Amino acid sequence: MIAVDWGTTHLRLYRMGADGTLSERRRSDQGTLATGGRFGAILAAEMAGWDDSHVLLCGMAGARGGWHEMPYLDCPAGLPDLARHMQRIHPPGFEHRELWFVPGLRDTSETVPDVMRGEETQLAALLDVLPGGVHQVCLPGTHSKWVTIRDGRVQRIRTAMTGELYALLRKHSILGALMSHDDSRFDAYAFEAGLRRSAEPGGLLHHLFGVRTAGLSGQFAEAALPSYLSGLLVGHELHECGLAADRPRPAQVHLIGSERLLGVYARALTTLEIGVQRHPEDLAARGLHLLWTRRMQAAGQRAPAPPA
Amino acid sequence: MIAVDWGTTHLRLYRMGADGTLSERRRSDQGTLATGGRFGAILAAEMAGWDDSHVLLCGMAGARGGWHEMPYLDCPAGLPDLARHMQRIHPPGFEHRELWFVPGLRDTSETVPDVMRGEETQLAALLDVLPGGVHQVCLPGTHSKWVTIRDGRVQRIRTAMTGELYALLRKHSILGALMSHDDSRFDAYAFEAGLRRSAEPGGLLHHLFGVRTAGLSGQFAEAALPSYLSGLLVGHELHECGLAADRPRPAQVHLIGSERLLGVYARALTTLEIGVQRHPEDLAARGLHLLWTRRMQAAGQRAPAPPA
Repeated sequence: MIAVDWGTTHLRLYRMGADGTLSERRRSDQGTLATGGRFGAILAAEMAGWDDSHVLLCGMAGARGGWHEMPYLDCPAGLPDLARHMQRIHPPGFEHRELWFVPGLRDTSETVPDVMRGEETQLAALLDVLPGGVHQVCLPGTHSKWVTIRDGRVQRIRTAMTGELYALLRKHSILGALMSHDDSRFDAYAFEAGLRRSAEPGGLLHHLFGVRTAGLSGQFAEAALPSYLSGLLVGHELHECGLAADRPRPAQVHLIGSERLLGVYARALTTLEIGVQRHPEDLAARGLHLLWTRRMQAAGQRAPAPPA
Repeated sequence: MIAVDWGTTHLRLYRMGADGTLSERRRSDQGTLATGGRFGAILAAEMAGWDDSHVLLCGMAGARGGWHEMPYLDCPAGLPDLARHMQRIHPPGFEHRELWFVPGLRDTSETVPDVMRGEETQLAALLDVLPGGVHQVCLPGTHSKWVTIRDGRVQRIRTAMTGELYALLRKHSILGALMSHDDSRFDAYAFEAGLRRSAEPGGLLHHLFGVRTAGLSGQFAEAALPSYLSGLLVGHELHECGLAADRPRPAQVHLIGSERLLGVYARALTTLEIGVQRHPEDLAARGLHLLWTRRMQAAGQRAPAPPA
């Protein structure tokens, strides 16, 4: 089978055996925003030479304005629910393959709904191995996802616009103007000062102005200010979105994402004396394979034999 | 005398009699960011035809990188303190005038300092007329100022980056992409929904993502989303920066600023059952005149006679 994780800025393909062995991977920057609507042609080109008959897709390609709008599945939802609500599509040019889409998830427990598309396949892989009980998962990024899992089902989703706000403030705000352009140097002292500041009264809008005065008053050097801002934002995300809502605090948080981001979040959680367990970003491949297996089993279909 | 309020994006001049009567006003968009360092030439041109010998300046022209860096005066500070710490400058070309700068104010009661430059002259006018006791003042804007006055002195300053963040999110974020470009239509229902949302758990970073889902799920139309975002941001500013820190809640807040912004903040405060008293933006002229009078009195100098 071929597992496809198609987000707004990336397209990742995994070729997997029936037993879940990953044999090949491909990656391109033709995210849904860069397709110009040519979803079928791009996917066909990316799969060239892979003749597997089953293709399972997740991510923003299934959003409104994407290739095929998949309705959201409401929480709580587990592996069997996700597998059952997959939809087969029949685009021209793919007559010799079976293309399936995984639904996104929606949490309607607040006055405004929260949603995810794509991350549910990473969670699917986790759901398969986690014991019963309550688990807290964080998928940091442009839009960080905080997920509560209870007894094998995704129960709560909370998204924080942390990564996007960091980028906006760096590029376009009066704060960015104070900082050096180089983001690569991580300053642990400034990051932790930002974390501490986030726990003080005053709120994020006030603390953000403080980044300016901290810079102007010489509390932090230009080169350290991006780390201070990062600590401030991650701290607010943790206190208000990730941890506060689920008292008592979890002893451990599962982190899924890129190594660099996980390092930042692990540091913040460790500072709060919360343990972390890291999982790689390509958990999506395993999740997609699991969902496909479930679906095939439920349909009484036998998974095709692994290539000879 | 001539009172000059020189901020980053505006330059306002007021010609006033010794008794404080405003006889003429001029306004230009040559804020300090647009001067290219030609402060003296620009001011001389703007004052053309006004032969008054005393000129009193406030605002970002007194900031680092401005015309003349004025040190901050630490809170608590009242009218006499501001008057005493004014500084005379002697730039070339102004030999026949006396030019004075008003210092900005700094509050060091938090781990990160908070500051203002320019607003202290609007506050000076208010300090002159307010009775003793505690008063809460809000100057909404790109960087909203919340000020606690106690017995005639500015005691606390809290700045919230509300206006700048609104503009950033409208122009550059994934939220702005969902909204109509027209900001002029105020939607009271959406604004108040945003206000209510700001009081719910989850924090600003989470609530911001909710603007997207509220739009995508059809809770609010494109044209109403800017008002929803505005309500959300103003609500967070009020709860976390303006009101929460000064329990018990004030029965009334003094608002200083443009009519349009004051309308928005008055609506938000009224929703929280807090009274408002509005003051016009050009309070700065009266404040500058007051400071000048105090300074002249303290120096034993007589104010020049009003023009015949």
